[in-house]
Amino acid sequence: MTTTINTIGILGGGQLGMMLAQSALNLGLQCVFLEDADNPPASFYGKVFKSSQLDEFINAADVFTLEFENTPVDTAQSLGEITNKAGIYPPAIALRTTQDRLHEKALFNQLDIDTVPFLAVNDFDELQHACQHLGLPLVLKTSRGGYDGKGQFVIKNQADIHTAWDELGQACQTAPLIAEGFIQFSREVSIIAVRGKDGQIGYYPLVENTHHHGILAKTVAPAPDANHLTEQAQNNIKKLLEHFDYVGVMALELFVTETGVLANEIAPRVHNSGHWTIEGAVCSQFENHIRAVAGLPLGDTRIVKPSVMLNVIGTYPVIKDILAVDGVHYHSYHKEERDGRKIAHITVMPADSNTLDETVEKVVKLLPNKLGM
Amino acid sequence: MTTTINTIGILGGGQLGMMLAQSALNLGLQCVFLEDADNPPASFYGKVFKSSQLDEFINAADVFTLEFENTPVDTAQSLGEITNKAGIYPPAIALRTTQDRLHEKALFNQLDIDTVPFLAVNDFDELQHACQHLGLPLVLKTSRGGYDGKGQFVIKNQADIHTAWDELGQACQTAPLIAEGFIQFSREVSIIAVRGKDGQIGYYPLVENTHHHGILAKTVAPAPDANHLTEQAQNNIKKLLEHFDYVGVMALELFVTETGVLANEIAPRVHNSGHWTIEGAVCSQFENHIRAVAGLPLGDTRIVKPSVMLNVIGTYPVIKDILAVDGVHYHSYHKEERDGRKIAHITVMPADSNTLDETVEKVVKLLPNKLGM
Repeated sequence: MTTTINTIGILGGGQLGMMLAQSALNLGLQCVFLEDADNPPASFYGKVFKSSQLDEFINAADVFTLEFENTPVDTAQSLGEITNKAGIYPPAIALRTTQDRLHEKALFNQLDIDTVPFLAVNDFDELQHACQHLGLPLVLKTSRGGYDGKGQFVIKNQADIHTAWDELGQACQTAPLIAEGFIQFSREVSIIAVRGKDGQIGYYPLVENTHHHGILAKTVAPAPDANHLTEQAQNNIKKLLEHFDYVGVMALELFVTETGVLANEIAPRVHNSGHWTIEGAVCSQFENHIRAVAGLPLGDTRIVKPSVMLNVIGTYPVIKDILAVDGVHYHSYHKEERDGRKIAHITVMPADSNTLDETVEKVVKLLPNKLGM
Repeated sequence: MTTTINTIGILGGGQLGMMLAQSALNLGLQCVFLEDADNPPASFYGKVFKSSQLDEFINAADVFTLEFENTPVDTAQSLGEITNKAGIYPPAIALRTTQDRLHEKALFNQLDIDTVPFLAVNDFDELQHACQHLGLPLVLKTSRGGYDGKGQFVIKNQADIHTAWDELGQACQTAPLIAEGFIQFSREVSIIAVRGKDGQIGYYPLVENTHHHGILAKTVAPAPDANHLTEQAQNNIKKLLEHFDYVGVMALELFVTETGVLANEIAPRVHNSGHWTIEGAVCSQFENHIRAVAGLPLGDTRIVKPSVMLNVIGTYPVIKDILAVDGVHYHSYHKEERDGRKIAHITVMPADSNTLDETVEKVVKLLPNKLGM
């Protein structure tokens, strides 16, 4: 049976849900959201249901997707099994794997996707063993939860081992920690791809990401000098998409080393490093995700013009000053200011691409939080 | 006193209001609408008030603008005079002039803007005189109301004079008719410009428009072979913007003759021939109108890539087929299908501009109403 898709139920109502809905509405579709936060960004674009209203949320939607990768897998799974609905995309199995760094890394290796060396850590002895085996420095992470740099500790010397254990050891009670060897990498890139219900895949160009205190600060699209990495990155994400029989947008974060790319982590959703695609690609990651979920043909992932995305973190800039710079696209998330919170982003894409770098410099100077730029 | 602008009150809630709100929300602003139709397109993007709720509408907004050019002038005027609000843009005087074709044409002539020859018609004798003086064929129009080709009659021969009078004569009881001489023109173009509160003006490139039964069918941006017309068109619209001390977006429709352009009519608002700017210009007409009304700096009006806008009239196409064409941007207005109604538009802007014409041809073939294309 084919379910006619008019309304998409999105798990989560943050800025990613907001931008998904912007695209859906243009295509003649509507969105509803499941989100417990008050007045989330997505609330401007569709009805928001609280977890306590799950039944109403389900009734309102024809198909499901997510913008919040920590959505409980059981919820996702059960939404996918409702017979008179068109399913959940991406599938719950992708969520299950990506919610656990150890499972994720194990899958990378199973699919012959290069990663940094890593070991599971179940107790303090295993941590000491990992430090010896992988060498210092290394990064100790919880295998579940944590984002934007939270839930991790860089162990630089012997003394740090105890401090790291004091901070993260308790998490072992629910799931093992993961110790990752420190690999010298020159930069971080990511690839975003979309897969349709018919198995067709579209790849956005590789982009280069700069983080500050674990939070994405800047994305340069396309990544400079990255043509030689594109084939490997596309092969990697293709394996993952096909493994999960994935439908929708996936992002894969990669470290660039002298010999190629190492997979870091999957985001089973639209991704901050793809926000530039709203203006910078023929069809944005948001529209392509909606197209995939709704069973529509995928859109062209090629770039329109080179662009740079800057996150606005914590404090809003003076909008008059930002808009006085030509080629600036401002996207407010209508969130209250709070330290470390993503509250807006700016895509810089001037008419004359030769002025891109200087335009970015001008904008960075106007950001209250320069994020190390 | 400076009023902080958070919410823009828009008179009208159709697709133009919808697209204004899309831009406003990205800038961190909100919109409310005054609209009596049920479930108008703008209702997805902000609260809609009925005329009976004018006070609530006023309370909800900090500044006013319009998307419906037949907004009663008195309403506009009174909104502009509320002391604790930031005014109405464009000013009511622009509305008053453009709601009357005779006043509008008289202003064109007063400002030395070329037009077709025209005469006011108050009775049948004056109609006969106009036919003699201007020659046949001529176009008889009501001076108020009428859009998309309604309220006008082409008089081709003597017999038509009586038929035209039978059809339109009654309108003379409220305002004179206007008889316009028939000028051989090769094509129709329009220019859209935006003026800020500081008097700064931004001009979009001239575009070429094709109508079918009086309804805009297609806009080509930029207009081919129009560089020699740009200066005259910009001068014309500049005079009008400055005459009204206008703030916001204005469109001016022009006929192209062998000697230059003739002004046809002003739209004191964002315009259908500027929908291509959402993807095709660095800053869209909608965002620039919002910027102007909110007292923010204007955005860059230059084009990103050549594009073509196609209106979807009456019946929706099969969206799967449309989206299968690369470089297509679909904008549904969420309206019910009805003969002659604008219910969506499609902007074609492929990654490779060389494929623009063939892509447009593909899309036209998929439109239920080909509008003569």
